[in-house]
Amino acid sequence: MIQVSEGSIKKIDGSIDSPKGYQAKGIHCGLRYSKKDLGMIISSVPAVSAAVYTQSHFQAAPIKVTQDSLKNGATLQAVIVNSANANACTGEQGLLDAYEMRQKCADILGIEPELVAVSSTGVIGESLDMKKIREGISLLDRTTPSEGDFEEAILTTDTVTKQTCYELMIGDQKIMIGGAAKGSGMIHPNMATMLGFVTTDAHVEEGALQKALRDITDVSFNQITVDGDTSTNDMVLVMANGCAGNECLHEGHKQWPVFKKGLEFVCRDLAKQIAKDGEGATKLIEVQVKGAKSNRDAQIIAKKIVGSNLVKTAVYGTDANWGRIIAAIGDSAASVTPEKVEIHLGGQCLFKNNEPQPFSEAFAKEYLQKSEVQIDVQMNEGKGTGTAWGCDLTYEYVKINASYRT
Amino acid sequence: MIQVSEGSIKKIDGSIDSPKGYQAKGIHCGLRYSKKDLGMIISSVPAVSAAVYTQSHFQAAPIKVTQDSLKNGATLQAVIVNSANANACTGEQGLLDAYEMRQKCADILGIEPELVAVSSTGVIGESLDMKKIREGISLLDRTTPSEGDFEEAILTTDTVTKQTCYELMIGDQKIMIGGAAKGSGMIHPNMATMLGFVTTDAHVEEGALQKALRDITDVSFNQITVDGDTSTNDMVLVMANGCAGNECLHEGHKQWPVFKKGLEFVCRDLAKQIAKDGEGATKLIEVQVKGAKSNRDAQIIAKKIVGSNLVKTAVYGTDANWGRIIAAIGDSAASVTPEKVEIHLGGQCLFKNNEPQPFSEAFAKEYLQKSEVQIDVQMNEGKGTGTAWGCDLTYEYVKINASYRT
Repeated sequence: MIQVSEGSIKKIDGSIDSPKGYQAKGIHCGLRYSKKDLGMIISSVPAVSAAVYTQSHFQAAPIKVTQDSLKNGATLQAVIVNSANANACTGEQGLLDAYEMRQKCADILGIEPELVAVSSTGVIGESLDMKKIREGISLLDRTTPSEGDFEEAILTTDTVTKQTCYELMIGDQKIMIGGAAKGSGMIHPNMATMLGFVTTDAHVEEGALQKALRDITDVSFNQITVDGDTSTNDMVLVMANGCAGNECLHEGHKQWPVFKKGLEFVCRDLAKQIAKDGEGATKLIEVQVKGAKSNRDAQIIAKKIVGSNLVKTAVYGTDANWGRIIAAIGDSAASVTPEKVEIHLGGQCLFKNNEPQPFSEAFAKEYLQKSEVQIDVQMNEGKGTGTAWGCDLTYEYVKINASYRT
Repeated sequence: MIQVSEGSIKKIDGSIDSPKGYQAKGIHCGLRYSKKDLGMIISSVPAVSAAVYTQSHFQAAPIKVTQDSLKNGATLQAVIVNSANANACTGEQGLLDAYEMRQKCADILGIEPELVAVSSTGVIGESLDMKKIREGISLLDRTTPSEGDFEEAILTTDTVTKQTCYELMIGDQKIMIGGAAKGSGMIHPNMATMLGFVTTDAHVEEGALQKALRDITDVSFNQITVDGDTSTNDMVLVMANGCAGNECLHEGHKQWPVFKKGLEFVCRDLAKQIAKDGEGATKLIEVQVKGAKSNRDAQIIAKKIVGSNLVKTAVYGTDANWGRIIAAIGDSAASVTPEKVEIHLGGQCLFKNNEPQPFSEAFAKEYLQKSEVQIDVQMNEGKGTGTAWGCDLTYEYVKINASYRT
């Protein structure tokens, strides 16, 4: 295994449009009252692309259209995204609308429609206002890119934009990987979509990119949970346009681990930002599981803990309630040997040898008041590690999600 | 398949001590501040018994002791139950304490300890105050049974007691099945145990009883969810003492379906009472799924819907938010054909043919204001049916579970 040296990957200020050859735009086209609601990513040349989609049985129309674009060749040159309306459960008309979005976008850019991906987020079950979308796409064409516009345009009720950028040294060649995402805020019920967009100027072989995205999604986006509900529109898309001019990266390439690690950092970074901005959240919760029988087991346990309503409310209440962590571990599908499990919080051991350990409640309470809380679990069964991210469960979550649709 | 006639099973006023030959008692022994906290069920003769236990990797000490009692012979004559303390994650001492509870109970009744089951519910990770337990068991011995005492003694922060009773005609012979349960209220964090006790005066063959309990648990207690967290102490126990004097019931017996259906009614009844009294709940939610590929698929879908935080908050907010129901179905592990799925609420069809259907929001909102809400899903794929029960997610849930341990 090749070690990825610390110095070869560096976080920098930047976003989806930082890698060479990308533009990102965002405008208000009228789907929302006043906020930006239509965004576009454009690459100067076709980019090798890969995507992962929601596992929901009810995949929304734009998901189907993007899958169609990627079914041959796996290259994209643009992505068109709207917020406010998910174009999900909208029947045949919804599919026609998503195809029209793709065509319209291709037309203004003068490219083939198969080079365009489509993505939507917002209310389920309402038809898109295509007049606004059409006019919006024309307006996008006349709009100069401006920092943060795209990131804003893809939000629903997220409270902050999410972006990140890493710089990697691939041998002597500098490449960049940038990303933007939206998460789950749902003042307007029915909204719940996780979208992630990643761009890189690296030259990457297609199959390797798809495989890397799949692997990395499992340890980043798939390891976050806000409320355990999966949207019909989730998608993570990565574009690699090769504008950095590097030698093509593939799985056998000496520098492949550097690229893959960089992509993982970008995805994890976005995933954490989504978890932290979960509906009504006041804290990011990170659960690190070590010593599990396998990495998969560790991931299952970590996600089970971070997804437990009881753990989430305990963290909100700054209560070092390890019994709820035990209940979550105990109920997980992973291999668990109760006598071997240890639970640590803020440097204190709370549980070990199947018995509670003495600890300072005051210190634990103080630790839990931080805006980022880490729970460490040692399974002492093997070498598997896994991390998951989530947020606390608050009155605000109930308020947001119980308010009647307006 | 033998049809169970309506008239052969009748719900009556009664509880765990209504079937012939049972007594149930409850007292305050001092584990709780003032409420009853120690209960006992006694059969006049050894009863064929069966139990199902929590699937948690962390099974509490009393669960292990009860398993030990039932490992040979499967007969019980008494059950001792305490609330306030789960005796879970209490190491070797916890196991010794649970065995001592069993022995002490056997001593005062003058029976073998293997005829006694032990059950505990309450805080995880604290040792039992055995002095209070010992004195309490002696006090139980001197106490005259009084209606509702046992049902009260097993509660933690449930707001109401849960009991039921059914009368069955097995040929010409009348038998009774009674039950008591506790659910999940958790003002005091770390508490979360579902306990169900069922008694019958029927004479039943041991293997058949165990199998029936297992089958029925899957469609009753295992189909309720309050917050998706599983306790270390969950247990459902059924005792059949034969005092009704009927011919022994077994799977080949002509009247077996009547008995099994009666047992199912008792378990469902208790399960629904637990769901309705979930932490902070204002409403019982019942989800009925029909036309699924299999019964198991229907159960999975029903439980997924009723367990969705988004559905739970929508019901709390009286919002006919079918998109969240779709999201839950879409994310389920069952077989789903989106175009075939129908969602009905209060007699109105909300979703069909993969498209929203016109419906009266006002009527739906009014329907959702009821204290018992039913969501109907038709999968149109097969003949599988399944039901699940849960409750709404409210501010009160967060309040209860975020409050610091005192």
